[in-house]
Amino acid sequence: MRTNFFSLLNTKHINLFILFISLHCFAQNKPNVIVIYTDDQGAVDLGCYGATDIYTPNIDKLAKQGTRFTQAYVAAPVCAPSRAALLTGKYPQNAGVNGNTSHVPNSHGMPNEQYTLAELFKDNGYKTGHIGKWHLGMSAETSPNAQGFDYSFGHLRGCIDNYSHYFFWAGPNVHDLYENGKEVFYDGQYFPDLASNKALKYVEDNKENPFFMYYAINMPHYPYQPTKKWREYYKSAKKPRGDYAAFISTIDERIGFLMDKLEALGIRDNTIIVYQSDNGYSTETRAFNGGGNSGPYRGAKSSLFEGGIRLPTIISWKNNLPENIVNDEFFVNIDWLPTLAKLCHFNLPKHIDGLDMSEMIKTPNTASERTGAFWKYGNQWAVRNGNWKLMGYPKDTSNKGKLDLENDALFLSDLSEDVSEMKNLADKHPEIVEALKAKYLAWEHGYETDIPKKTKPINHLGKHGKIKAVKKLNNRYKNIEVLIDGKRGYVDYSSGQWIGQEGKDLEFILDLNEMKSISEITIGYLHNPSNWVFSPKLFEISFSNDGLTFSNTIQSETSTKINTKHNFIDTLTIQTKQNAQFIKVNIKGIKNIPEGHEGASNSGWIFIDEIIIK
Amino acid sequence: MRTNFFSLLNTKHINLFILFISLHCFAQNKPNVIVIYTDDQGAVDLGCYGATDIYTPNIDKLAKQGTRFTQAYVAAPVCAPSRAALLTGKYPQNAGVNGNTSHVPNSHGMPNEQYTLAELFKDNGYKTGHIGKWHLGMSAETSPNAQGFDYSFGHLRGCIDNYSHYFFWAGPNVHDLYENGKEVFYDGQYFPDLASNKALKYVEDNKENPFFMYYAINMPHYPYQPTKKWREYYKSAKKPRGDYAAFISTIDERIGFLMDKLEALGIRDNTIIVYQSDNGYSTETRAFNGGGNSGPYRGAKSSLFEGGIRLPTIISWKNNLPENIVNDEFFVNIDWLPTLAKLCHFNLPKHIDGLDMSEMIKTPNTASERTGAFWKYGNQWAVRNGNWKLMGYPKDTSNKGKLDLENDALFLSDLSEDVSEMKNLADKHPEIVEALKAKYLAWEHGYETDIPKKTKPINHLGKHGKIKAVKKLNNRYKNIEVLIDGKRGYVDYSSGQWIGQEGKDLEFILDLNEMKSISEITIGYLHNPSNWVFSPKLFEISFSNDGLTFSNTIQSETSTKINTKHNFIDTLTIQTKQNAQFIKVNIKGIKNIPEGHEGASNSGWIFIDEIIIK
Repeated sequence: MRTNFFSLLNTKHINLFILFISLHCFAQNKPNVIVIYTDDQGAVDLGCYGATDIYTPNIDKLAKQGTRFTQAYVAAPVCAPSRAALLTGKYPQNAGVNGNTSHVPNSHGMPNEQYTLAELFKDNGYKTGHIGKWHLGMSAETSPNAQGFDYSFGHLRGCIDNYSHYFFWAGPNVHDLYENGKEVFYDGQYFPDLASNKALKYVEDNKENPFFMYYAINMPHYPYQPTKKWREYYKSAKKPRGDYAAFISTIDERIGFLMDKLEALGIRDNTIIVYQSDNGYSTETRAFNGGGNSGPYRGAKSSLFEGGIRLPTIISWKNNLPENIVNDEFFVNIDWLPTLAKLCHFNLPKHIDGLDMSEMIKTPNTASERTGAFWKYGNQWAVRNGNWKLMGYPKDTSNKGKLDLENDALFLSDLSEDVSEMKNLADKHPEIVEALKAKYLAWEHGYETDIPKKTKPINHLGKHGKIKAVKKLNNRYKNIEVLIDGKRGYVDYSSGQWIGQEGKDLEFILDLNEMKSISEITIGYLHNPSNWVFSPKLFEISFSNDGLTFSNTIQSETSTKINTKHNFIDTLTIQTKQNAQFIKVNIKGIKNIPEGHEGASNSGWIFIDEIIIK
Repeated sequence: MRTNFFSLLNTKHINLFILFISLHCFAQNKPNVIVIYTDDQGAVDLGCYGATDIYTPNIDKLAKQGTRFTQAYVAAPVCAPSRAALLTGKYPQNAGVNGNTSHVPNSHGMPNEQYTLAELFKDNGYKTGHIGKWHLGMSAETSPNAQGFDYSFGHLRGCIDNYSHYFFWAGPNVHDLYENGKEVFYDGQYFPDLASNKALKYVEDNKENPFFMYYAINMPHYPYQPTKKWREYYKSAKKPRGDYAAFISTIDERIGFLMDKLEALGIRDNTIIVYQSDNGYSTETRAFNGGGNSGPYRGAKSSLFEGGIRLPTIISWKNNLPENIVNDEFFVNIDWLPTLAKLCHFNLPKHIDGLDMSEMIKTPNTASERTGAFWKYGNQWAVRNGNWKLMGYPKDTSNKGKLDLENDALFLSDLSEDVSEMKNLADKHPEIVEALKAKYLAWEHGYETDIPKKTKPINHLGKHGKIKAVKKLNNRYKNIEVLIDGKRGYVDYSSGQWIGQEGKDLEFILDLNEMKSISEITIGYLHNPSNWVFSPKLFEISFSNDGLTFSNTIQSETSTKINTKHNFIDTLTIQTKQNAQFIKVNIKGIKNIPEGHEGASNSGWIFIDEIIIK
């Protein structure tokens, strides 16, 4: 083609052409980058992903102008950690964001020391802008401006009313709209339009500079507030699907505005556009229990089944990267940072988890560099290796099938055969379970306690005895019979198998009904610091024959484990040699949550699931 | 004056004057009536009530143009029952509205058969309009249009975002704006202005007709969303007081618009304006725990202390009723219906609780017709007689002082000496307590169980025994030791003294430690139908010597009390003559909640506080 083309040109044309090529190449060395990140958009909720009831001509056009992925994941099934992964190129755990960050004024989010996409672009001479949702911290040092963005406009919390820009979902009802850290009021103005106009202006203001713009569109996250135009377009659709679909079309229209603007400014060919959803569609009450669609996938927002994490993903660099490509390779949002760095000819930062996937995007039919990935959210975790995916404590927010905690706490799927993850193959392929468990444990630094075990009843002397509380119990945890039922608890402290107390001791007297010879007393406990649950600090026992006078006190301290940030279930044992009918057990928690924890200086919780007497 | 005036007129003038007088008198026979009802406005939060930090020139002017009350009450400390009382002239209990009505689509509110102010005015040839908040039902038959209003514009639920008109405080986030029962969208338009404009238009459209307009202003209820003008006016004020004050000034400005409109239309002198707040200021988290002020009074929204119910109240009929009057007489919002009826020369409807107070308003220094009043909200109740006020189970949402449930469950104040209700005189004046209790009971149809009694420990055989549950307990109510602790429960089922179960039996085995001679077994139970708690249907006991084989079963049925709508605590006793160590107690609730109840066909709850063995 080039030869033919050159043959058509005279010398003057050739000179112009060379000039053009030079400029073009110069531009290509520093292409603009726009990352569009939508909020709670379901796995197949775009025309180009097969939706026939949602009209998205602009995003479909974007897909045609680039690569659309069918196996692109996010590293977490909820907003904040997914965004942390996108912006740092790291698993959210390694970016310091395990779950959604707080809405409380001045509370921290993603630690300031994390090196973000914005800092990477800034260090390479780009202007950097953030427009839309943040949800990675409410303090000055975790704000967009502190994390590498020259410019920021939007809301800091997880969601807002689109007209008043108030955050309504917890605590007092507060206004939440900021420009470069300063509260700004645009009473009654539609936020998607405000954000769209700010984005168009940003692009126009920076048309001469290379720029990186993180356009964090706050839709289709509840509240479903589409424009009148789209509300009417979908008025005969079923609710809540219609409202959700109208909100997606509201997104699409604004992405059209942006693409038109780039064309009008003549910088479309010099701008890489990335599009992805942050997590699966929401099935929360706030979202009418749904409205989105994960198509063939099981799960939705908050779930590590595919529907929570395998999402619409597009990259387009018109006339510079292949177009009209459907890429079926394995990709995770932590890969954006190294991939974009490579496409823009930056040096890669160190200590990232993502992989440079630029070759796979430049050359269709190249196999993915990626063979595996890990996820952890709350008690759920998942590891994928090739087409095998093993999950621990899976949760199906889409309710597409039943999960049995005893049998499905470890859930193995072969995604090449069962993309819907409906068949648990764990019992059929124990060797694969073991291999994936080992991979997960290596990633999770060996926390064996994350691995569900089939629980067998424990036979012990206390099982046939009686238990009474000496100190006042917490109102929510009074069924103390579970402490001598011979069953251990799952990691979930609200599962009914745990007795918890906040800031106070737990103290019980066990009556073994008659004098027994006692050699060992063990308590099972939980350490779950993200829920303010900490290993007990002190475990003390004493003995009695009459239930009144206790003596022979023995103590055991456990303070070394209090500062670990990982969740685990563990036991604490005291060996003894006693004959007694009654045993008094006292368990003390830490007085104050240690510094460095978000709950520092508040009182912590202790949780006990069994007192095992042998 | 008139003589002098007439002497100045020539014949032609006299004819014109007579014509004017005739028109004027005709008009005065059918004056327009506007009832302005604000939302969660504190007791002294107006300039004319002494506030020095809130600017309210228009409402202060309204007070100058009429009578401002210092002892005007509402009949309930929260929105819906307060509104029901206003609109029916009845205590809310008699209007079928005990508490806030549901936000759930199609749910009922104030029963359609209630005869409202709107129906009264309509039957007397008036146009009737409702503008603003409704909160008295979500079904067609409990809607404003079904309750007598020709015209209605506003929101049906308890509060909305003022720009998006969404209800955010429970369930899914829903749009809530209706005009005559049809959902209407005014995306982004400020609701206080929308409502104000509709009110001005209503007044203008009906300037030739007599009209009644219920202008239910949804401010200063959270979310605090004042206009930019007032936000800036108060920008140096402390939060949340500043936001709240700015919202009050936003109200005041719009009342100014209305007063100006009436003047401009020449109908101000022919329009009675009533102004009142529906309940005290809110101390809810949603309202930043406060912002309003109840001045010298104790209590706030949801409390029956004065601060929850004694509120800014004004009536003005310029040039027709006395002006610049401060009225210190006793008045309750149920009195508006008969008072306005009288001022407009209507016949009074039957079966109302309110009193015609028109004479007291027409002739300053006339004593109030009213000597007493009653309140009941949840477990709290109050009776006022002269200056004595007795409360049962008081609750101080303003936290101005401590309340001791044991000593202050009956709280007597002398308002002439202690308007702040800080000194409980119940022990000092037992005879007054008895007299007011009797009045309350007469009003409450003799439900003795509303009366807190100083609880004395009950000694019984079970107190020294053990108890275990045979059937699975409800997760929230597992501390079954309370059933044999010798203490009865307060009316509040969540007080920790109750064991509840939903849709299932409760079954326990009591171990008396040794064979005992048993003559009587009693269970204490709660009947609280508004919380879906119903008297047990069946109480069954059986006996055992070994704890394994039970025999001699005795049953007692209680079905007759299940349909009563009043709350009470009662006991059920079975007499017997048995020797046994073990007693099995089975308590069955009703299977389905009876027809006619809002929870009909759902399963009901049973609550037990003590199993008394004698």
